Amino acid sequence: MSLARVQSFSISLDGFGTGEGQRRDAPFGHAGDRLHQWMFATRWWRGLDEPGGSDGVDNAFARQHDTGIGAEIMGAGKFGYPGWHADPDWKGWWGPNPPFHTPVFVLTHHLRPSIEMEGGTTFHFIDASPAEALGMARKAAGGQDIRIGGGPTSVRDFLAARLVDHMHIVVVPILLGRGVRLWDGLEGLDKDYQVEAASSPSGVTHVTFTRAGVRSS
Amino acid sequence: MSLARVQSFSISLDGFGTGEGQRRDAPFGHAGDRLHQWMFATRWWRGLDEPGGSDGVDNAFARQHDTGIGAEIMGAGKFGYPGWHADPDWKGWWGPNPPFHTPVFVLTHHLRPSIEMEGGTTFHFIDASPAEALGMARKAAGGQDIRIGGGPTSVRDFLAARLVDHMHIVVVPILLGRGVRLWDGLEGLDKDYQVEAASSPSGVTHVTFTRAGVRSS
Repeated sequence: MSLARVQSFSISLDGFGTGEGQRRDAPFGHAGDRLHQWMFATRWWRGLDEPGGSDGVDNAFARQHDTGIGAEIMGAGKFGYPGWHADPDWKGWWGPNPPFHTPVFVLTHHLRPSIEMEGGTTFHFIDASPAEALGMARKAAGGQDIRIGGGPTSVRDFLAARLVDHMHIVVVPILLGRGVRLWDGLEGLDKDYQVEAASSPSGVTHVTFTRAGVRSS
Repeated sequence: MSLARVQSFSISLDGFGTGEGQRRDAPFGHAGDRLHQWMFATRWWRGLDEPGGSDGVDNAFARQHDTGIGAEIMGAGKFGYPGWHADPDWKGWWGPNPPFHTPVFVLTHHLRPSIEMEGGTTFHFIDASPAEALGMARKAAGGQDIRIGGGPTSVRDFLAARLVDHMHIVVVPILLGRGVRLWDGLEGLDKDYQVEAASSPSGVTHVTFTRAGVRSS
């Protein structure tokens, strides 16, 4: 069974998945890197090259980001800064070898040819509903799971369409005050899931949503 | 040192401290009792008369609700349903012996004489700023701490005025979707505090804010 999964999606205590004022030199706006410091501190993030890194609950969750994933779907606001579609050379924030290593479906009204990158990542640009995008990603994923990669608006759209099977949210104890909220308009969503919370000594709390009856692949 | 403390203030995962549609028969609107079930399940809530109840982290936090408190300040929306001020006989939701057992200062534009209840609770009605209210409550508290009792609007006002020394928020894993938010307009508040999070097997997460340099009385 191929699941639609949200992994390591970080929000502030007041519910913002990204800050205000996103720019080419500030992908998360005024949030800077504060939503993701917990992840940068993990052994998983540091990888084999860099010594150290935390090896506790944060690392255990972070490691699940790629495991069993065969494709990602992301919103236009994750792929680039506001206005990226006017730049024909824009290929995302991640350099020549992006960290996805799978097909990546970018939801956008501004279509362009697919871009094959190093390391197995191919960006496909599609103008589709969440359900249509999930169908396309499933075909490309070879039976593996689909990661709904963000940003907050696209995660919210997939949740509203009841398409997410498993979700891992990381609540970071900061108050951003402004930006894009994850939770707007999702009253009662918790009723469809088993919800668990696990706090980490780092200060973040991992909240997982598991849909009843869903089996891991 | 007399501290201003918020204790056991419950919010939904999407940040609402109360639901929409508060009425005389629905003090928390459409939230019902879902924000407080964790507390009802504790040994502390059940008291000496009723057997059982959880005795873990939820109980440890719940017990701090009254300890060392010499007065409470509450908003008009906690004291009564919308329009209570038009009812001269309204004395709060709690019956003849309210669970405060201290002076309680109700912030309202509709003043009325103080009401002495059984068990040591006296309701005083004041039209005052957060700082003025805190000054009055301190005088009445005999050197003990002041509880900022809610609702969300009044807690937010005291936070915005930087008057809260210690805060215990309970994040309940439900999505209310609508109601009154706690966190609006508090960007950067976390910088003034040491913030910790502790998840409970019950599913809630206790988030504590402790102001640097604050000593308990």
